[in-house]
Amino acid sequence: MNQNPSDRPVVRFAKGRARRFRSGHPWVFSNEIEMNAELKALPAGTLVTLMDAGDEKLGVASFNPHSLIAARVLSRRWTEIVDAGFIAARLKAAQALRDQLYPTPHYRLIHSEADTLPGLIVDRYGDVFALQINTAGMEALTPVLLEALTEVFNPRAVVLKNDSPVRTLEGLALEHKIALGSLDGPVELEENGGRFVADLTDGQKTGWFYDQRDNRAFIARLAKGRRMLDVYTYAGGFAIQGALNGATEVVAVDRSEHSLALAARAAELNGVSVQTVRAEAFAEMARLEAANERFGVVVVDPPAFVKSRKDVQSGAKGYRKMARLAAPLVEAGGFLLCASCSHHMPVDQFIEEIAHGLGQAGRSGRILRSAGAGSDHPLHPHLPESAYLKALVLQLD
Amino acid sequence: MNQNPSDRPVVRFAKGRARRFRSGHPWVFSNEIEMNAELKALPAGTLVTLMDAGDEKLGVASFNPHSLIAARVLSRRWTEIVDAGFIAARLKAAQALRDQLYPTPHYRLIHSEADTLPGLIVDRYGDVFALQINTAGMEALTPVLLEALTEVFNPRAVVLKNDSPVRTLEGLALEHKIALGSLDGPVELEENGGRFVADLTDGQKTGWFYDQRDNRAFIARLAKGRRMLDVYTYAGGFAIQGALNGATEVVAVDRSEHSLALAARAAELNGVSVQTVRAEAFAEMARLEAANERFGVVVVDPPAFVKSRKDVQSGAKGYRKMARLAAPLVEAGGFLLCASCSHHMPVDQFIEEIAHGLGQAGRSGRILRSAGAGSDHPLHPHLPESAYLKALVLQLD
Repeated sequence: MNQNPSDRPVVRFAKGRARRFRSGHPWVFSNEIEMNAELKALPAGTLVTLMDAGDEKLGVASFNPHSLIAARVLSRRWTEIVDAGFIAARLKAAQALRDQLYPTPHYRLIHSEADTLPGLIVDRYGDVFALQINTAGMEALTPVLLEALTEVFNPRAVVLKNDSPVRTLEGLALEHKIALGSLDGPVELEENGGRFVADLTDGQKTGWFYDQRDNRAFIARLAKGRRMLDVYTYAGGFAIQGALNGATEVVAVDRSEHSLALAARAAELNGVSVQTVRAEAFAEMARLEAANERFGVVVVDPPAFVKSRKDVQSGAKGYRKMARLAAPLVEAGGFLLCASCSHHMPVDQFIEEIAHGLGQAGRSGRILRSAGAGSDHPLHPHLPESAYLKALVLQLD
Repeated sequence: MNQNPSDRPVVRFAKGRARRFRSGHPWVFSNEIEMNAELKALPAGTLVTLMDAGDEKLGVASFNPHSLIAARVLSRRWTEIVDAGFIAARLKAAQALRDQLYPTPHYRLIHSEADTLPGLIVDRYGDVFALQINTAGMEALTPVLLEALTEVFNPRAVVLKNDSPVRTLEGLALEHKIALGSLDGPVELEENGGRFVADLTDGQKTGWFYDQRDNRAFIARLAKGRRMLDVYTYAGGFAIQGALNGATEVVAVDRSEHSLALAARAAELNGVSVQTVRAEAFAEMARLEAANERFGVVVVDPPAFVKSRKDVQSGAKGYRKMARLAAPLVEAGGFLLCASCSHHMPVDQFIEEIAHGLGQAGRSGRILRSAGAGSDHPLHPHLPESAYLKALVLQLD
């Protein structure tokens, strides 16, 4: 990569179109710039100098001529050299923030634009790092990124989990590989005082969903002295934290044997007992209702029902049904957590669907908490719409 | 109040208009019912039986013929007797929930519809209770409510803080008086391990804003080892919790001598030092910037800038200016909490205004937390729009 700032191609804003960018927005849209044949021919991910219509240089950005988001700013100092030192400084700032928030080095380290590294997700498991690279710009920076990670953290392993469908939009291939070091099995992590295991080599899921940390802490506190059901338990996050906080009995449901094995191993690590049940979520909830099983705490945290904008209506029905099936399992005065990680499902509509599902089940109650992801998933102030997680905690009458 | 359910006036839904109510919504709108001269002549607050177009009895409600919200359901069992025992059961359920959430009896006990007592707010300070009665229906129930409070809590004092402008819409007079017992000065409360004083006899404000409890805990943790500024400190909530968590120096600003006296007294109770400054918030922030004062944590939690729908645009500008004035006071890597308790300011617009204000101040950063009120301010699942508090915590670069 040519790193002389003066040699970078120039992307010029159309007259009067730099206003949004100047106000702090980190993206430049394709209709805001003067596109030309030369720019169109640039490889996706090329570093460019942004310039306004009056020739003022506004920063350095990653450019993709084929994307609606044409440029993503890396720095508003156009002279900045985007090398391992540049990225290392940002990794260190992100680390310093997390180290103020959490007692152990297990967290989302980089959450894309909000951590000033557009297109990059980094989850940290102590000295093991799982990366998602979602833009051509960050793909082009991968070598310096790996250099920077090595410089700051000296990792035991760095895993590239580049399997997000958004890569396709950026013209990138899907891949899942170990880029640095090696792994000989699942990694360990701590969350809210519990110990867990995440499998970064299983291709189906990311290793751990740190985004629910605060919601797990909230519900675990309520689980004390209650019987708990954790549907879609995955690696046992909610279930085991409930058990650690004094739940009298915990049932954890998942369709995947592999996930349940991770949950069982975590239960063992924590010295708690969790009953794992391999089953489809909706069918199991219906079966439990028919069997007259009741719980003081029910958690339903499914994978995204809505994968794209066109799925919103069918996904919404899914969330409604989920609430209808879960509500009867909650004893009077008990608690229900319903979550959605569907980016395309607006929070207002999610609440409406859950409320309707409760109504269909003949249950009333109150919302005690409506929250998104924890603070290690910060939001860029100009991209609040990038929030995707919705978790509602209700008490039912 | 005539308490024979069969003798209650009947309010009948228009054909096909009971659907929303049946799905769980707690309100009946005036355009959903068959209004007639007899109903129009009922005193506001009368208990009525709700009936659908097919003569099915759907519940007992408080009726107000002069309000757009014509009826507020009290129970979906139409035979329910709405007496002190009925209200006592709801007070006890609300208490049981809070006692699971908080270690001391200092919280919002009743948050209106969400706690199944429409039109009623109760803040609890141990054995002292501050009530806001906001509907004609609850006004009519005041005697049984006081009886129920006495039965469940045997209060030292019950204060009626009936000074909300919404009372006027319900045809109720404003008043502020001690309804039961007596008070000989401010009351004490505990929050997040700190001790505070609230003055329930001062007519200008409610005693304590319990809604910020979780936001105070979050920011206090970040204040450790940092210099802190608390603008609009009121009774010192954020400031003193910051000091208790190891802030190196705390400056608390308010325009009211009386508020600063409460804050100073709380500082004394907790054995911490807080510097109080009597000043107008915006002017003081500008002065501090000019004096080159910088803080690791800045909290700006003003009274509502938007009092009605028509004020939204001017209020929005106020929040933008607030962020612009506060941002320069935050050191690099420091934290800023901006809050709005304006019900009419949507959260999306609030975030946008704050982001613009930061941009005007030339500052970037990330949103670590976007939260509303704590769990003792629950929401009715069908009234999510009744959420009013918005608190953003940002880290600035």
